[in-house]
Amino acid sequence: MVAPSRPSPRAEAEVRLTDSLFAPGAHLPDTAAVHDWVAGMSRRVWMRTQRAALDELDGWVREPGTGFLRHHTGRFFSVEAVTVERPDAAVPSWQQPIINQPEIGILGILVREIDGVLHCLMQAKQEPGNPDCGVQLSPTVQATRSNYTGVHKGRAIPYLEYFREPLGRSVLVDTRQSEQGAWFYRKRNRNMVVEVGDDVEAIDGFCWLTLRQLADLLSVPELINMDTRTVLACLPGGGAHWAASVASRSEDDFVAALARSADPAAPSRHTTDEVLSWITEARTRTELRVERTALRGLAGWRVADDVITHHSGRFFSVVGVHVRAGGREVGAWSQPMIEPVGVGVIAFLVKEFDGVLHVLTQARTEPGYADVVELAPTVQCAPDNYDVLPEGARPRFLDAVLRPERIRFDTVLSEEGGRFLGARNRYLIVEADVEVADDDPEYRWLTLAQYDELLRHSFYVNIQARSLVLCLRSLAVR
Amino acid sequence: MVAPSRPSPRAEAEVRLTDSLFAPGAHLPDTAAVHDWVAGMSRRVWMRTQRAALDELDGWVREPGTGFLRHHTGRFFSVEAVTVERPDAAVPSWQQPIINQPEIGILGILVREIDGVLHCLMQAKQEPGNPDCGVQLSPTVQATRSNYTGVHKGRAIPYLEYFREPLGRSVLVDTRQSEQGAWFYRKRNRNMVVEVGDDVEAIDGFCWLTLRQLADLLSVPELINMDTRTVLACLPGGGAHWAASVASRSEDDFVAALARSADPAAPSRHTTDEVLSWITEARTRTELRVERTALRGLAGWRVADDVITHHSGRFFSVVGVHVRAGGREVGAWSQPMIEPVGVGVIAFLVKEFDGVLHVLTQARTEPGYADVVELAPTVQCAPDNYDVLPEGARPRFLDAVLRPERIRFDTVLSEEGGRFLGARNRYLIVEADVEVADDDPEYRWLTLAQYDELLRHSFYVNIQARSLVLCLRSLAVR
Repeated sequence: MVAPSRPSPRAEAEVRLTDSLFAPGAHLPDTAAVHDWVAGMSRRVWMRTQRAALDELDGWVREPGTGFLRHHTGRFFSVEAVTVERPDAAVPSWQQPIINQPEIGILGILVREIDGVLHCLMQAKQEPGNPDCGVQLSPTVQATRSNYTGVHKGRAIPYLEYFREPLGRSVLVDTRQSEQGAWFYRKRNRNMVVEVGDDVEAIDGFCWLTLRQLADLLSVPELINMDTRTVLACLPGGGAHWAASVASRSEDDFVAALARSADPAAPSRHTTDEVLSWITEARTRTELRVERTALRGLAGWRVADDVITHHSGRFFSVVGVHVRAGGREVGAWSQPMIEPVGVGVIAFLVKEFDGVLHVLTQARTEPGYADVVELAPTVQCAPDNYDVLPEGARPRFLDAVLRPERIRFDTVLSEEGGRFLGARNRYLIVEADVEVADDDPEYRWLTLAQYDELLRHSFYVNIQARSLVLCLRSLAVR
Repeated sequence: MVAPSRPSPRAEAEVRLTDSLFAPGAHLPDTAAVHDWVAGMSRRVWMRTQRAALDELDGWVREPGTGFLRHHTGRFFSVEAVTVERPDAAVPSWQQPIINQPEIGILGILVREIDGVLHCLMQAKQEPGNPDCGVQLSPTVQATRSNYTGVHKGRAIPYLEYFREPLGRSVLVDTRQSEQGAWFYRKRNRNMVVEVGDDVEAIDGFCWLTLRQLADLLSVPELINMDTRTVLACLPGGGAHWAASVASRSEDDFVAALARSADPAAPSRHTTDEVLSWITEARTRTELRVERTALRGLAGWRVADDVITHHSGRFFSVVGVHVRAGGREVGAWSQPMIEPVGVGVIAFLVKEFDGVLHVLTQARTEPGYADVVELAPTVQCAPDNYDVLPEGARPRFLDAVLRPERIRFDTVLSEEGGRFLGARNRYLIVEADVEVADDDPEYRWLTLAQYDELLRHSFYVNIQARSLVLCLRSLAVR
C-alpha cells in the first residue's frame, strides 16, 4: 500500500515561509525599530580600516618565485594570479590577480518560530570593506574553516554548533554556492538555514526578523550584506501556496505576474529540461582554460610592493589595510583586499509571457567558476571598464538597463566586506520589451519557479543573480 | 490568467518511455533476432588486440620529466599520475597512475517512433578492451571531441549531426556525467538522447530496439556496453504513469515495491532535501587533495618501459596494445590501456520501507571526481584488492553481498572497452535486511524516484550506480 499523500516537507516549509513573508516582526516590531537597533549597534561596536602598503601587512608574506601573497600560517586566503584563455570570446586571453580561498566556509541563518511565525536570526556586523565600516545585517554565522577551527585564536563563534551538527535538526537550506568568479578562484560557501526551537535566544548583537522585514530592508542601500542575500535566496521562495497568497493580497498586475512566475504549474517559456540542456550545452561548448601563473610580471598589471593596479586604471586593485575593531573575535589585523574601480550595474530584465513574469538570464563564464558557466543576471558589469575593452565585449542589453522603460527595483548594495574594499553595485530590476531568439546560445527567459528549483543545487545560479532573485521576490510584498 | 495545466513535456516523455518498456521490437522482433543480428555483425566486422610494450606504441611518447604517456598530437588522452591525500580515510594517502582525458565526449542515443513506439538506435561496436573483442550494443554515437573534429583522419561519424546541433529537436536527455573516478582524472561525457522523425533510418551496423528489448538484453553477460548503460540510465525511468503501469502488469510483491519506488508521490525514507543536504555535508566534510605528480618513480608502483604494475600485483596495470580492425573509422592503431586485476563486485542492497523499495546508497570519494563525492552502489570493489589493504578499508556490506539472502539481478557486465582491457564487474541487486542508522555519514536509503530526479543533473550518481539503476528498472519487466 502506498501511504496516502500528504504535503511534502518542502511544501510545508513553503507555507511557513510564506507566512513569514507577510508577518510583522515580533522581536523588533517595525522598520523604524530595526533602524534604531542597527544605529545602536553601530555606536557600540566600531571598526577602523586604514590603507597600508601590501609589503607592510603583519603576517602576510610573498611566496618566493610566484610572488603570491599568503598569510604566514598558510591559512585564510592568498592573492594569486591566473592566465585565462577563452578562444571564442571577445577578449580571448588575459592575466589577472585572483583570490584563492580553498576552504568551504559556512554562511548560516538560524530560524525559529516566535508567536507561530518563522523569524531569522540576523547579526549586526561590520567588515573592513563596508562603506565607512558601517554595521550591516549579516547571517547568524559567517565563518571560514579557519575561523571555526581557531586559527584566529579569537573568541568562539556564537551559534556555530547548530550548523556544524545539523543532522537531526530541520535543515531548510544546505547547498554550496559560488561567489564572484571574477575575483575568487573557485570559492564556495556552504549556505545553510537551520530551524531551532524556542529555547534559542538572540544574544547581544543579534535580532530576530521576519522575511517581511528583511524584504523591506533590502531596499535600504547597503544594509543587507551579500552573505545574507545569498542564504535567503536559497530558501524556498515560491510554490503554489506562495503564488496564491501573493496574488490574493495585491491588485497590482506586476505582482500578479510575479506570483504566477513562482508557481511551478504556470506555463514557462522553456521547460526545465530545456533549461538544463542549454546549461549543459554552454558548459560543454565553452572553452575555458585557467592556469595559475606568477603574480610578479603579470601582463597588463603594475605589481608593486605597495599595491597592484591595472595599467588602464580599470577593473580593480589589490590593496592592503590595517584594521582595528571592537566587538569582534579579533581586535586588530592586517590583510590584502580587492578594491574594484567604479560602481557596477547588476540587472534583471523582466517581461511577461502568457501573464507569467520571466527573467532574462545569461549563461556567463568567469575564470573562478568551478564549472565553467553559471546563470547570471541579464547585465552584470562595471560600465566604465568597457572603455578599454573591444566593442564586442560590451554587454548586450546594457543600454536597455541604463535607459530603462520601467524600473521595479533600484538599490545600491555592497559585496562581501571581508575581502572587497568598497565594492558596490547598483541592483536593478527593469521591465523591458526586448526580443531574444529562442535558441540564443547565451540567454534564456526563466521563471522564478525555475530559479527556485535550480537553487536547490550547487553552482547553477551565480551570486549576483541570487541577490537579484531575492530582490525580485521582495517585490511581492511592496 | 494562468493557462490550464496540461501534462508537462517530461510527463509526456515518461508515458512514451513506459510504452517502450512494454513493447516488443518492430525492427528486430524478438531477443533471438537481436542475437542473430549481433552474431552476424560479429562475423562481418573484426578486431584484433595484441599486447605490446608501452615504449613500442606508435604515436605515443613519454613527456620529458613527468614520464606522462601522451599521443604525439597532444590529443586523445594521456596516462598521468596523481598523489592522493584523504586524511580521514583508512588509506590516508597513495600514488597511482590515472588517465587524463579532458575533452567532453558525446554519448548519444537517437530515438524515434516506429509503429507509434519509441525505439533506440543501437550500434554493434567492437572495442579493443572487450572480451575476445566481441561486438557489444553501444550508443548511436560514442565520440570524443578528437573523434569528431577529425584528428583520427577517419571516416565521418554517422548520426553525429543530430547531437551536435540539438537545438530545436526534442532532447530527452542532455547532462554531463562522470566515469570511473578511480581510473580517470575528471572525465566527463555528455549523455544525450535526441528524438528524430521517421525519415531517419538505421544504416548498416545499427538497429532500432525498444526499451523492453534493451531491458531483456541487460541480463546477457557483457552485451550492453557501459556507454549504453549510462545513457539509458539518464532517461526518465519512473513517474506516476510508469509506476502504475508496472504495478498493473505484475502480481509480484517485489515488482509492486519497485513500482512504488519509482513514484515520486510514494513515501521515502528521507526527503530529497535531506538527501541533498547529506551530499552537501559529505562534499564539505571530505578532505581530498589530488595533485598531479611524475609518473616515473611512483611510490608503490613498478613503472617500467613496457608495463606499469603495482608492487602487490593488485589494483590495475597500465599496458599497451596494437589494434587492427575492420569496419571502423580507423583500421589500425596503438594505445595504452588500463587492465584491472580481478573481477569487481558492484551491488545494490535493496529493502522495503512502507512497501516502497529503497536502495542503500554510498557517498563515495574517488580521486578523479570533479566534485569530491558521488553517490555510489552499496558495494563497489574488487574484493581481491583488500588482501593488501588495512582492515578498516574493507567495504561495509561486502559480506551481505557475497552471502546474499535474495538475488534479484546477477550479471557480469564490462566497462568501457576503449580505455580498459577486459574490465569486468559482477553487477548484483540483492534484497537484504540490513540496518543502517538514519544519520550514518556514508549511507542513505534512496528511492528510484529520487535517483530519477538526481539523474537530471550532473555528477550526483556515479557510473557504477547508473548501471545498477538501469538494471533495477529492468526488473520491472522480468
